[in-house]
Amino acid sequence: MCNECSEMNERIDRLKGKLIVSCQALPHEPLHSSFIMGRMALAAAEGGAYGIRANTKEDILEIRSQVDLPIIGIVKRGYEKSNVYITPTMREVEELAEAGPEIIAADATGAVRPGGVALSEFFCQVKKKYPRQLLMADCSTVEEALYADRLGFDFIGTTMVGYTPQSRGDRIEGNDFEIIKRILDKAKHRVIAEGNIDTPEKAVRVLELGVFSVVVGSIITRPQIITRRFTDAIEGIELENFNIKQG
Amino acid sequence: MCNECSEMNERIDRLKGKLIVSCQALPHEPLHSSFIMGRMALAAAEGGAYGIRANTKEDILEIRSQVDLPIIGIVKRGYEKSNVYITPTMREVEELAEAGPEIIAADATGAVRPGGVALSEFFCQVKKKYPRQLLMADCSTVEEALYADRLGFDFIGTTMVGYTPQSRGDRIEGNDFEIIKRILDKAKHRVIAEGNIDTPEKAVRVLELGVFSVVVGSIITRPQIITRRFTDAIEGIELENFNIKQG
Repeated sequence: MCNECSEMNERIDRLKGKLIVSCQALPHEPLHSSFIMGRMALAAAEGGAYGIRANTKEDILEIRSQVDLPIIGIVKRGYEKSNVYITPTMREVEELAEAGPEIIAADATGAVRPGGVALSEFFCQVKKKYPRQLLMADCSTVEEALYADRLGFDFIGTTMVGYTPQSRGDRIEGNDFEIIKRILDKAKHRVIAEGNIDTPEKAVRVLELGVFSVVVGSIITRPQIITRRFTDAIEGIELENFNIKQG
Repeated sequence: MCNECSEMNERIDRLKGKLIVSCQALPHEPLHSSFIMGRMALAAAEGGAYGIRANTKEDILEIRSQVDLPIIGIVKRGYEKSNVYITPTMREVEELAEAGPEIIAADATGAVRPGGVALSEFFCQVKKKYPRQLLMADCSTVEEALYADRLGFDFIGTTMVGYTPQSRGDRIEGNDFEIIKRILDKAKHRVIAEGNIDTPEKAVRVLELGVFSVVVGSIITRPQIITRRFTDAIEGIELENFNIKQG
């Protein structure tokens, strides 16, 4: 193994049993800004995160300027006639390659990619052009995870569980994380838990079950979502029951 | 009552039974930036917050440009020979007045202010120069709260509970929020719960008990603190117990 690969392996090994924080804000979100995402990543690092997941080349470059942590990079982009929006085509892979994230993640749900490209074909295109690039598969079912594992993805993620028609109603934490257990039981590659991990207890549990690393996002880096947890709870109680002092 | 006062009252009344989000990042914090705090406030508004608490004139002006919500303004500044750092002197009040927050909050813990000024003297100075300015007292004990209430503060806050020598070890949620119950029992002015309200359940409970409004901060707007909740939990488990797939 060359020095470069050996150093990369060391960087990745440090993620073992640790937290990765997803720092993303899409154009319609209040924190949309590469500057803010860089500072978010800095906050995550200060809080003890070992890795960052980020969207777009611009955000990744800014995050690189703020923290020295391994990055899982994606580009979210919508195309007509395809439901795949996480790194759907080679165009997004090439953009990411310019920023050089340690891992590139892509949709691996089996939905048809833009241009009618199958997942296996996309995987081969990426590996041909970037043979050393580590790849993570964002899957929504056990079957998809095991297919991505057979294709040779380096990391198998549960990112899309509950977000595809074939996984509708599935919850990552259902039946004590049964989906993750079933993937761990059969997959040869490292499994990364991602999606709806919104409490420290859930993060601990998936690590206990044997995932390599756990990604936590919105509950840390989307203040509008966290605020909503509070306001939903407050709206849920009847104001008439309050005995508010009017001063 | 003049139209201006009537409109102000209406703005303030809207806070009744609602969530105020504190958007602060001090100079040593990763999100320190008025730009970011403005976007944070926007996120809080999107998440259903009815008010914002903010630090410094600069942050308040930026937040005003992003959201139309009532603001509780403070200036945190340290002085020699005084432990008071939340709006300690008239200098900070004058700075805040330039930004015009609906409410100005200040330390009301009874600690000696810079220059040996007592709380009652400070209160009179502010009311003399800004007779219509609504004021919130940041207190650490029931006694302080009731003293501030007698002085005439418009809002009585529990911000400092646990953060002064005389409240060391006290927790706002202790004995089902006993401190808040005791303040509510005697105070004539509106009570605002603030400090360590870090779950939706706690926010709901203090509203049920009868506080006018509840301020939530770090668990929404300090990602380094939220990240630490996860990493502390993860560090707390023995890695040897994991059965991590190495791929």
